[in-house]
Amino acid sequence: MPNAKVAAFGEVMMRLAVPGCELLTQANTLNYSFSGTGVNVAAALTRLGHTGYMVSRLPANPVGDAAASSLGKLGIHPAFLKRGGQYMGMYFLESGFGTRPSRVTYSNRLESSFNTAPAGEYDVDSIARTVKLVHFCGITLAMNDGVRQHMQVLAKAVKAAGGTVVFDCNYRPSLWGDNGYEKARPHYEAMLQLADIVMMNEKDAMYTLGMIPASREGREEQLRELIPAVAAQYDIAVIAGTHRSIQGNNTHSLRGFMYKERVFTFSRTLNFAVYDRIGAGDAYTSGIIHGELNGFPPETTVGFAAAAGMLAHTIAGDTPMSSEQEIRRAMTEAVGDVER
Amino acid sequence: MPNAKVAAFGEVMMRLAVPGCELLTQANTLNYSFSGTGVNVAAALTRLGHTGYMVSRLPANPVGDAAASSLGKLGIHPAFLKRGGQYMGMYFLESGFGTRPSRVTYSNRLESSFNTAPAGEYDVDSIARTVKLVHFCGITLAMNDGVRQHMQVLAKAVKAAGGTVVFDCNYRPSLWGDNGYEKARPHYEAMLQLADIVMMNEKDAMYTLGMIPASREGREEQLRELIPAVAAQYDIAVIAGTHRSIQGNNTHSLRGFMYKERVFTFSRTLNFAVYDRIGAGDAYTSGIIHGELNGFPPETTVGFAAAAGMLAHTIAGDTPMSSEQEIRRAMTEAVGDVER
Amino acid sequence: MPNAKVAAFGEVMMRLAVPGCELLTQANTLNYSFSGTGVNVAAALTRLGHTGYMVSRLPANPVGDAAASSLGKLGIHPAFLKRGGQYMGMYFLESGFGTRPSRVTYSNRLESSFNTAPAGEYDVDSIARTVKLVHFCGITLAMNDGVRQHMQVLAKAVKAAGGTVVFDCNYRPSLWGDNGYEKARPHYEAMLQLADIVMMNEKDAMYTLGMIPASREGREEQLRELIPAVAAQYDIAVIAGTHRSIQGNNTHSLRGFMYKERVFTFSRTLNFAVYDRIGAGDAYTSGIIHGELNGFPPETTVGFAAAAGMLAHTIAGDTPMSSEQEIRRAMTEAVGDVER
Amino acid sequence: MPNAKVAAFGEVMMRLAVPGCELLTQANTLNYSFSGTGVNVAAALTRLGHTGYMVSRLPANPVGDAAASSLGKLGIHPAFLKRGGQYMGMYFLESGFGTRPSRVTYSNRLESSFNTAPAGEYDVDSIARTVKLVHFCGITLAMNDGVRQHMQVLAKAVKAAGGTVVFDCNYRPSLWGDNGYEKARPHYEAMLQLADIVMMNEKDAMYTLGMIPASREGREEQLRELIPAVAAQYDIAVIAGTHRSIQGNNTHSLRGFMYKERVFTFSRTLNFAVYDRIGAGDAYTSGIIHGELNGFPPETTVGFAAAAGMLAHTIAGDTPMSSEQEIRRAMTEAVGDVER
Amino acid sequence: MPNAKVAAFGEVMMRLAVPGCELLTQANTLNYSFSGTGVNVAAALTRLGHTGYMVSRLPANPVGDAAASSLGKLGIHPAFLKRGGQYMGMYFLESGFGTRPSRVTYSNRLESSFNTAPAGEYDVDSIARTVKLVHFCGITLAMNDGVRQHMQVLAKAVKAAGGTVVFDCNYRPSLWGDNGYEKARPHYEAMLQLADIVMMNEKDAMYTLGMIPASREGREEQLRELIPAVAAQYDIAVIAGTHRSIQGNNTHSLRGFMYKERVFTFSRTLNFAVYDRIGAGDAYTSGIIHGELNGFPPETTVGFAAAAGMLAHTIAGDTPMSSEQEIRRAMTEAVGDVER
Amino acid sequence: MPNAKVAAFGEVMMRLAVPGCELLTQANTLNYSFSGTGVNVAAALTRLGHTGYMVSRLPANPVGDAAASSLGKLGIHPAFLKRGGQYMGMYFLESGFGTRPSRVTYSNRLESSFNTAPAGEYDVDSIARTVKLVHFCGITLAMNDGVRQHMQVLAKAVKAAGGTVVFDCNYRPSLWGDNGYEKARPHYEAMLQLADIVMMNEKDAMYTLGMIPASREGREEQLRELIPAVAAQYDIAVIAGTHRSIQGNNTHSLRGFMYKERVFTFSRTLNFAVYDRIGAGDAYTSGIIHGELNGFPPETTVGFAAAAGMLAHTIAGDTPMSSEQEIRRAMTEAVGDVER
Repeated sequence: MPNAKVAAFGEVMMRLAVPGCELLTQANTLNYSFSGTGVNVAAALTRLGHTGYMVSRLPANPVGDAAASSLGKLGIHPAFLKRGGQYMGMYFLESGFGTRPSRVTYSNRLESSFNTAPAGEYDVDSIARTVKLVHFCGITLAMNDGVRQHMQVLAKAVKAAGGTVVFDCNYRPSLWGDNGYEKARPHYEAMLQLADIVMMNEKDAMYTLGMIPASREGREEQLRELIPAVAAQYDIAVIAGTHRSIQGNNTHSLRGFMYKERVFTFSRTLNFAVYDRIGAGDAYTSGIIHGELNGFPPETTVGFAAAAGMLAHTIAGDTPMSSEQEIRRAMTEAVGDVER
Repeated sequence: MPNAKVAAFGEVMMRLAVPGCELLTQANTLNYSFSGTGVNVAAALTRLGHTGYMVSRLPANPVGDAAASSLGKLGIHPAFLKRGGQYMGMYFLESGFGTRPSRVTYSNRLESSFNTAPAGEYDVDSIARTVKLVHFCGITLAMNDGVRQHMQVLAKAVKAAGGTVVFDCNYRPSLWGDNGYEKARPHYEAMLQLADIVMMNEKDAMYTLGMIPASREGREEQLRELIPAVAAQYDIAVIAGTHRSIQGNNTHSLRGFMYKERVFTFSRTLNFAVYDRIGAGDAYTSGIIHGELNGFPPETTVGFAAAAGMLAHTIAGDTPMSSEQEIRRAMTEAVGDVER
Repeated sequence: MPNAKVAAFGEVMMRLAVPGCELLTQANTLNYSFSGTGVNVAAALTRLGHTGYMVSRLPANPVGDAAASSLGKLGIHPAFLKRGGQYMGMYFLESGFGTRPSRVTYSNRLESSFNTAPAGEYDVDSIARTVKLVHFCGITLAMNDGVRQHMQVLAKAVKAAGGTVVFDCNYRPSLWGDNGYEKARPHYEAMLQLADIVMMNEKDAMYTLGMIPASREGREEQLRELIPAVAAQYDIAVIAGTHRSIQGNNTHSLRGFMYKERVFTFSRTLNFAVYDRIGAGDAYTSGIIHGELNGFPPETTVGFAAAAGMLAHTIAGDTPMSSEQEIRRAMTEAVGDVER
Repeated sequence: MPNAKVAAFGEVMMRLAVPGCELLTQANTLNYSFSGTGVNVAAALTRLGHTGYMVSRLPANPVGDAAASSLGKLGIHPAFLKRGGQYMGMYFLESGFGTRPSRVTYSNRLESSFNTAPAGEYDVDSIARTVKLVHFCGITLAMNDGVRQHMQVLAKAVKAAGGTVVFDCNYRPSLWGDNGYEKARPHYEAMLQLADIVMMNEKDAMYTLGMIPASREGREEQLRELIPAVAAQYDIAVIAGTHRSIQGNNTHSLRGFMYKERVFTFSRTLNFAVYDRIGAGDAYTSGIIHGELNGFPPETTVGFAAAAGMLAHTIAGDTPMSSEQEIRRAMTEAVGDVER
Repeated sequence: MPNAKVAAFGEVMMRLAVPGCELLTQANTLNYSFSGTGVNVAAALTRLGHTGYMVSRLPANPVGDAAASSLGKLGIHPAFLKRGGQYMGMYFLESGFGTRPSRVTYSNRLESSFNTAPAGEYDVDSIARTVKLVHFCGITLAMNDGVRQHMQVLAKAVKAAGGTVVFDCNYRPSLWGDNGYEKARPHYEAMLQLADIVMMNEKDAMYTLGMIPASREGREEQLRELIPAVAAQYDIAVIAGTHRSIQGNNTHSLRGFMYKERVFTFSRTLNFAVYDRIGAGDAYTSGIIHGELNGFPPETTVGFAAAAGMLAHTIAGDTPMSSEQEIRRAMTEAVGDVER
Repeated sequence: MPNAKVAAFGEVMMRLAVPGCELLTQANTLNYSFSGTGVNVAAALTRLGHTGYMVSRLPANPVGDAAASSLGKLGIHPAFLKRGGQYMGMYFLESGFGTRPSRVTYSNRLESSFNTAPAGEYDVDSIARTVKLVHFCGITLAMNDGVRQHMQVLAKAVKAAGGTVVFDCNYRPSLWGDNGYEKARPHYEAMLQLADIVMMNEKDAMYTLGMIPASREGREEQLRELIPAVAAQYDIAVIAGTHRSIQGNNTHSLRGFMYKERVFTFSRTLNFAVYDRIGAGDAYTSGIIHGELNGFPPETTVGFAAAAGMLAHTIAGDTPMSSEQEIRRAMTEAVGDVER
């Protein structure tokens, strides 16, 4: 299905990035944009030929207007966006360089329009009737009971209507506080019960789900042991994820995997210079979803997803911007000269 | 006393201003700076030759670091700044032009480091021993009981140590909600009981204090009726303020007044082009304080304060930046050509 | 009808504006945006609560992608946008100041995707079924026979489906060359035959239509003589327009009029500082359309349109950005202070 | 002579301007350009169709390279530019706004390549053979004996070769120090002996030349009394200048005059909004020179010069950029709308 | 001949580059400059001590003014620049990063002032009398018959006057369309008949000239086989070019060669980080020309050209900016620390 | 002593950096900041928890105001800053890239406020009573006798009061002119007599002090031979420094050493990508001082200093900005992902 209707549920965040590599304490301007895991996935799938919807809530003020305009600029369909409440989640980004890591500082997102949306705010029935697939992520899961309730209601409705539920296990320690894994576990388990496609790797299984691998060493060994167990336990059709390593000269390495029908498929290990790392994981997710929506063979899907993830590191901002043609060229060709 | 130690109590706000005259929904960069009524007054007095301290609390993170650096850049002494909590109050500014007014959108400042400072956080005794004068404002009064408690404790301590208490009645309707004036009144009355110098005009007396003038028309008539009554009732040494009118071609008119020892003194009405209106009222306040600290005659003080206010409209950002020499030149001379 | 579906037919232009007041020969950066009469009208009506569509053709390359994204950012519905051809119409803008006028330099727009769209390119039937109103303008009419054919086909289809046809007589001398008025006249007459709402004033009647007023002097006298004649001759329900005068200190004066059911209605003359003059006429048009769509009384419509036009001069870029609430405030109130 | 070869002798200065209206203590970027009275006059005359040469000396380093490139960008012919020495004269510009005047802060220009050029550095014979007119100014006269010697040598050579010598009496108090007028007088007198066209007004006569007018009041009366006396005493063919007044809302008024063959000719008084005031006097000078080179009648010359001066206030940077066509339009027409 | 007069014939292009690494669809500003193969070669040779002329035609409007100013800034002599027509060739540049290639999108350059210059437009006789060398390139050859006619006329005139003709075989597939090589071949052959110095490599020989190498593999083997054949067939004194390879981490490798008097000379293979790749080939060309003009031995010439090419990759913009001293330092030394 | 009072004596320089990688001849904006070895060391130590004072003199004009504000922004205590004189030392920075080195061009700093400070200008007694340590550098030593006299007086006073004297042998050839090492030697020797901690390596010993190593090859061999000799001769407690190598792909390698109590301690060799190289040596110095002030073991001190130096290469501007926590993380951990 080259043109599917897909929705993402999640908070739209205002990114306030210090230009270049200065610190907040050195600069006096910020570049702002609007992103978030859901925005990134919906926008990436739109660029791949699908119709992306965002299920979220924005404040009814000029900041919310700017966010809504930005989603329109990304081509996201506005039908399921709600307006209400007063605040946006925001984060400040100070870009790192080489051996100095990037630094993110959040504003108080718990009071945001999204995180204070009342029960029944979203058009769940209409969404379930419209979309073929809906995407959730673990960051959203960390917010509060109201948000988690929205997630459950929407996931169940889409599933009931025959749609696909995607869940990205993304875990942010700072959002859960002390004993975070214990607090988070039941909520992750509830989402895994509903999910058809899950983004995770062996570390999520170990820490978030509390699974203990027999093998003490070797990421791939642990992965090959734990992921099939997760898939079996929660009856998940596809589990996919990446292994990343970071070098001190602004380059990263990435290898994608996908577990489906009891078979692991791996991409080759990609090495590449990094321009903007944030949101690149969402490009990988979008590649997996695109592959599954189109029925690509697993080796194509995982290669496509890894190339999509790689290219997202070379793009400014959180949101992936590459077309299918560009990703396919990055999968197969040597690095190209100027395209004229 | 040309070089006094003076403190201001209040929240340090992060100002996120859209450059030029674009809207948030059009632009993609913001200029940021750190201001607030207290910052503006402390910095303005520093530039006038005093030593300004800020009594406030900033988050212990990169945003707080940037705020602390900015206060250092303004020459504010860091001795009474506390670090703790997680968030800064922020506001977005979209600059108006001509007949289109400027627009301010706040983030959730109630969760800010300042507004969540615990009782006993500030070095009240040390501040009271150090400074000759402390400044408070009505915006801060709108926050919560904790902040109001800090205000009372600090004002009483400074007064007990022989210092001067300044209170700016500045009232922001959106901060108090429905029946705001009724909610605010007891808190304003409590501060007026402690204040030696008060910034207000007849509208504050009517709305915030609920006074009813005999004369239905004429701002000056109402001012001449109500201000002496306020001064008498609360035993206030100096009450000062301004009357402003706004023209559609980016010019404003301003006339300052000061009531002291039962006499009103008015500045001439100043007409001037406006570059950045925000914070200009704080320049007027600083001029009144500077005049009183130096024992200027009232006509000098009010003329100096009005000229300081006028110049602050021609300066980028919220914070006044003019020296005594520059203000005195603006009081007396015609508009000058390039200074080389 | 507070939420109507409305379409505009016309070329999307890339505006390349030198920042500030520098000349092209002085600067080295440009701000780019995408506009055009149709874009401005469709976007302005979207902001006023309608659903705006753009009927146009963009190149299938990165410049076209950027244009499509920009229309999405303005909230314009993409259903009737076509992609094909290779080039965008572009213009360079050097902003004037005071007594130095702004200067526009065009690229070769005749080769643009819009101006080379083949017959049958647009979904005329679908558009006619969908929209209640369609907008055309005289600039488009100057392009070539293919474009004029598209205009005739679309206008007739919308009219046949019961929709309203709006035509803005906007005449650009440089586009028609020598004896331009003679060349243009038959094409203008053909559009006036189809139009229900027409934007023009007495100069258009005199020059474009070749009418000769009895009164040699007095713009208003000529207007009162010629506009009723045009309305009668072409059976036009509403004719509206403005009279403008320009002062040397960056201020303009504007007075709107509207002729409907044999009655002239005039707005008061508005005087205002000008930030960006381009596109402000399209805001006036949008105000007239909005008034007619909602059935406002003529004095409300013309006052609303004039205020919309005035505010558009205070907004950066070609495209109007004001909400109904903001325009209504500008109609009735004094110039406001900062809105917080 | 619509295309004459003209030279200007003087220092090329690096202008370091704070963008917008911020102060040096607020901003962190500067816009740089290269100007100076000579550059402005040579560039303005180039734009008016002449061939402008700059007689000056630039450092043989990257700053000098940038200056040379900038002169090339302005179309100034490089034949008489020398390279040597180590430093450029520089000045910082903080733009004023409304009632706050602009502020210029100089670097140490006395050590500049220009001010340390050894005797015999310039190709005096070649210059004298090439150009029809050479321009000097009083700012240069303030530097040191070496520079004054260069001025005398060059002026005498051009005069001897039949060329015209222009001298602008421009006096900068801060450059001459205490008793500046007394120190300056003999040097001014020496240049006036050689000059054919002189830019000055009654204040120069009174202060720099020490003349005492009979009439105590009235600028025009003093002008009409003193200028003919100067012309007679030094045998000067043309004396021209302006009277300026400054309003508090960013507008200036300017009236030009010219005294030639015992007749005063005045322009009308022009009122206009000011964008960048610096260098506008040089545009007036260029207009006078252009009029004289072309043999315009005095009323045309003075009107052209005044319009050139007015337009230079609306242009960014020190250097005039208007063409003859643009200046003529500004002389005769009402303020124009956008030129397309 | 360290200071020769050299001309380049070709189109001046306006480069509109998205700043940083954003896409057109993400950004809203562009950096503009004026370049083109001819501009790059003429400017590079000017910086190397020669006098560079540009033989081209620019529109008589503000965009053309900006282009002419830019050539002046680069030090190019304006004597052979013509003004006329209405449009400039333009291209948009989106800079790639790492594994994402840069992307160039052209405007419609066929209507440009250069490509519509009438026969006889250029001062061919004067150019031929003035310059010692003239440069052409294959991009220009792709335009139309009028341009190709100008090339033939000018090349023959310079050759007849004893000057040197340089031809760069640069082939752009998108400019020639289907069966491009066949269409292009006769035009390339015509220029090769006239050329003394030719820039090409084995791929040009194979594709553009249709030569078939005996050796199927090995770029150097093919080069060593084909280039001597080309030199012999067309009687070319010098053929030079480069082999480039591109790595995924923003570094390229470059090796220059030169074939002269039946001998191949190669530079060492240079590896370097790339900042702006466009125009770097023109720096190599300029180095070859400079070496030939000065009679450097081949190993010096090819090493100098390769170093010039390498440095051009580290310079912003299309146009090489390095001096002979800088290039010589890059030929011989290790990478240097900050130069103070 | 985790919070010591430390002073640095030296000139505050205005850095005028071309943004990005453009040359002065290409760009038209500059980023300005205020730095210098002393500023960098005082600011770095402030960020490490100490109280840094700057002993220097700034002009009493807007440029000096901006410098003073910048030091306040860096947290430097203003007590020992003097105002007077007219000029700032300035330098232009054109950032290199890859194989193209950065380029620094100085203004005439000999006339600066700092270099013309009269004898007795600084509060030597008060400084000596206040600070535990004072830092000097060899760049300052190159200025003139007045400055050298200030250095001697202050170093002796601090030493007499029991404080520590740090001297960085930093030698700039261009400041000393011909036979620079001979001219400089006596002044270096005089400072070494007073110093407790000295920054230098074997090249300083060989060139500045004229020592001749027995071993002709091997930097480490020469270091191990010469540094102990210097320490013995001048009775220096600690000598520390670095060995650096530069690769062509924007990466450097750095190895720190420290000689104390007759033992050499080396850091591991760090390899890292470089963002802004200037001032990084001062970060290393600050690390050594911080280690000594806190009594860290030598291996901790030298590792901390090397990591501080490495991080300073990844920070924009001359001045180190890293906290102790950040430096310690860089000492021990792998390169981190985004910190949230």
